[in-house]
Amino acid sequence: MSKKRKLGRGVAMVGAGMSKFGMFSDLDSKDLFTQAFGELTGSIDKGLDPKDIDALYVGNFTNDFFVSQSHWGAILADTLGLAPKPATRTEGACASSALAFREAVFAVASGFYDIVLVGGFEDMSKRSTEEVAEGLSLAAIPYERKAAFTFPGIFGAIATAYFDQYGASREHLMNVTIKSHQNAVLNPKAQYQASIRDIMASKIERAKSKGRSAPEWCDEKDFLRDPMANPMIAWPMHLFDCSPISDGAACMLLVGEELARQFTDDPLYVAGLGQASGKGLHATDNLTAFEATACAADEAYRMSGFRPSDIQFAEVHDCFSIAEILHIEDLGFFEKGHGYKAVEEGLTRLDGPKPINTSGGLKCKGHPVGATGAAQLIEIWEQLRGQAGERQLQNGNLRIGAAHNLGGTGGTSTFTILERR
Amino acid sequence: MSKKRKLGRGVAMVGAGMSKFGMFSDLDSKDLFTQAFGELTGSIDKGLDPKDIDALYVGNFTNDFFVSQSHWGAILADTLGLAPKPATRTEGACASSALAFREAVFAVASGFYDIVLVGGFEDMSKRSTEEVAEGLSLAAIPYERKAAFTFPGIFGAIATAYFDQYGASREHLMNVTIKSHQNAVLNPKAQYQASIRDIMASKIERAKSKGRSAPEWCDEKDFLRDPMANPMIAWPMHLFDCSPISDGAACMLLVGEELARQFTDDPLYVAGLGQASGKGLHATDNLTAFEATACAADEAYRMSGFRPSDIQFAEVHDCFSIAEILHIEDLGFFEKGHGYKAVEEGLTRLDGPKPINTSGGLKCKGHPVGATGAAQLIEIWEQLRGQAGERQLQNGNLRIGAAHNLGGTGGTSTFTILERR
Repeated sequence: MSKKRKLGRGVAMVGAGMSKFGMFSDLDSKDLFTQAFGELTGSIDKGLDPKDIDALYVGNFTNDFFVSQSHWGAILADTLGLAPKPATRTEGACASSALAFREAVFAVASGFYDIVLVGGFEDMSKRSTEEVAEGLSLAAIPYERKAAFTFPGIFGAIATAYFDQYGASREHLMNVTIKSHQNAVLNPKAQYQASIRDIMASKIERAKSKGRSAPEWCDEKDFLRDPMANPMIAWPMHLFDCSPISDGAACMLLVGEELARQFTDDPLYVAGLGQASGKGLHATDNLTAFEATACAADEAYRMSGFRPSDIQFAEVHDCFSIAEILHIEDLGFFEKGHGYKAVEEGLTRLDGPKPINTSGGLKCKGHPVGATGAAQLIEIWEQLRGQAGERQLQNGNLRIGAAHNLGGTGGTSTFTILERR
Repeated sequence: MSKKRKLGRGVAMVGAGMSKFGMFSDLDSKDLFTQAFGELTGSIDKGLDPKDIDALYVGNFTNDFFVSQSHWGAILADTLGLAPKPATRTEGACASSALAFREAVFAVASGFYDIVLVGGFEDMSKRSTEEVAEGLSLAAIPYERKAAFTFPGIFGAIATAYFDQYGASREHLMNVTIKSHQNAVLNPKAQYQASIRDIMASKIERAKSKGRSAPEWCDEKDFLRDPMANPMIAWPMHLFDCSPISDGAACMLLVGEELARQFTDDPLYVAGLGQASGKGLHATDNLTAFEATACAADEAYRMSGFRPSDIQFAEVHDCFSIAEILHIEDLGFFEKGHGYKAVEEGLTRLDGPKPINTSGGLKCKGHPVGATGAAQLIEIWEQLRGQAGERQLQNGNLRIGAAHNLGGTGGTSTFTILERR
């Protein structure tokens, strides 16, 4: 068990903004981050003079090799007109911007800075699928790469082990996918703003318009079982079990707790922070739990004083459908081996007692890897402040939400609890 | 002018270690960092149980594309046996580990962690010179790359502008090189532990042993003027104006100020921290000053209450000989346009009133880019504690030293003041 951690100065979130997520052939990293920053400045209820920003933190994973440019802290500080303010990039694979968030929290909590901009971004879609698969594997632990595992392969192996251990099946994974798509319908920023039924209808429509016989599926699972509609990637991971290739950016403004109400009457507070490192799958006895996630969660719970049952809703790192099931167990929301049943019973739906990935998750909102950690926290921000539009949770007393971000195959895991007071 | 910054909790340095710097065909990033960590654990006067380390921060610039592996925080946490402790990588080009150092300071100053390991590393020498030149250009601002500038080209342009503006010449740059080599003779970790005279003698020896007529140089400058011995890279940058391609790692242990004496009776304290972003050379009116360096220095001086004249010695980012001259001006040690004269007069030598780059600097100690910021701070550590061996400064009352680290062409600049109390 970890020590009980605390911050010497409380930290509040007072603004947030994100670009639409998707595949944008005409937008680069600077364009996307500028979009997100523009939305952020507009989101500050009582206004923000960008000159008052003390520092910038950005998370990014792949730009070194996908766009052949490093040093993005400095570049974005210049792009946003913030230079000579200091800017720092963090990299922790798909958890890159959750790490940036933590560093921004520490910078404010240390008393050194008062007002810090933090976010993440990724620009992946201009590379071929092969290049992206190769590039993303740089996040894995070297032993996994030597064993020729790709990410779908690793999570496929995890899913197979989970099926074996707990009696789940592919049908249970489909419940995660169907829910993610349902939520994303209500998220205008989502890359795939379509339910599985919407996708079925559009495929039928397209077949008819081309004069071909329309496919016939009796329901969503029937569609997901169809190998033409949902081809296998790495057993049992099929196309609709996998998060997509995405571009996007997201950012937030953090300030010292005592300054929060200069910016908004409705700030959120950082109640719990946790981060841990995993050893890699080669060194684990158990493929069906991420030790780093459990450690990160323990650190955040102890800091906040909250228990898993206090977390009213969460964004978790569903890079693959099986990952969502593992994480809701590792975070303590459901007992080990019961996550798939909870999803099946609807407990994690928008109208369930523990909504998970109300944004549509990585699967449907999109997964521009360096932006994901920040975007998860923005979903918590919007839900807690009642600004989530059509997907707004209807719990009358929303107060506590959390975001879980995973880097690689569990090499890095973070858990962040936000509170509205 | 920046605000006066302070930390809510003081932070002390209580241990340090570094690998030898050089080109090591048989050592990778893990090997090098493990070497540095081994030396660090041995350096803690009162001992360290690695289990007590709360978190790890590492700076690295090029591993994503030079060794095709990212996510080094997690990998090194595993390598050192620290997992599940959290680990975060920072990247700010050649300032990557100075950024890691700042984040480690903030993490401790925030009260969240008590004992943090921080360092940097780079593994560059296994790539061809062409690949390294291409890769390092990822640190530059995109406009500079579009203009086809390489790093020697950029610093060559800066030198030419400096010559024009202040009447300096190539002969003055040679004084920097000669001093760096003299200092490095006394540094057993240095990549080039040889004076220019040593190099001259060895070249003469080699010529004789091959039965060729021995070159004749009347002194060091005569050698440096010889285009066979010191070929031009990008006018007026010649081979001996440029820091080398290096592998290496360096790390330090930081703790809350009140805990320092549990580890050593002779800790150092973080007195001043500064970081700033530059806009890139395309946007500057003046090629002969780095605005980011002046801003970073201002922030650190204001925090510490010290003036430039209080800094008894410093490591500055001499990626090229001209850079050392610019930085000692931008940091306020000498007036603008007088840096080259100060070097000529010997003011920056080991026995001068303001010793600069006592380690041999990037030029001779080596420049494994992600390790450089950490290694600079370790030179300050060794000098202030009287552990610098033959290159120990003989000032009887050494108390204040500082390190300046530059990323790219001034996109990021940091200045850190350490104090012995």
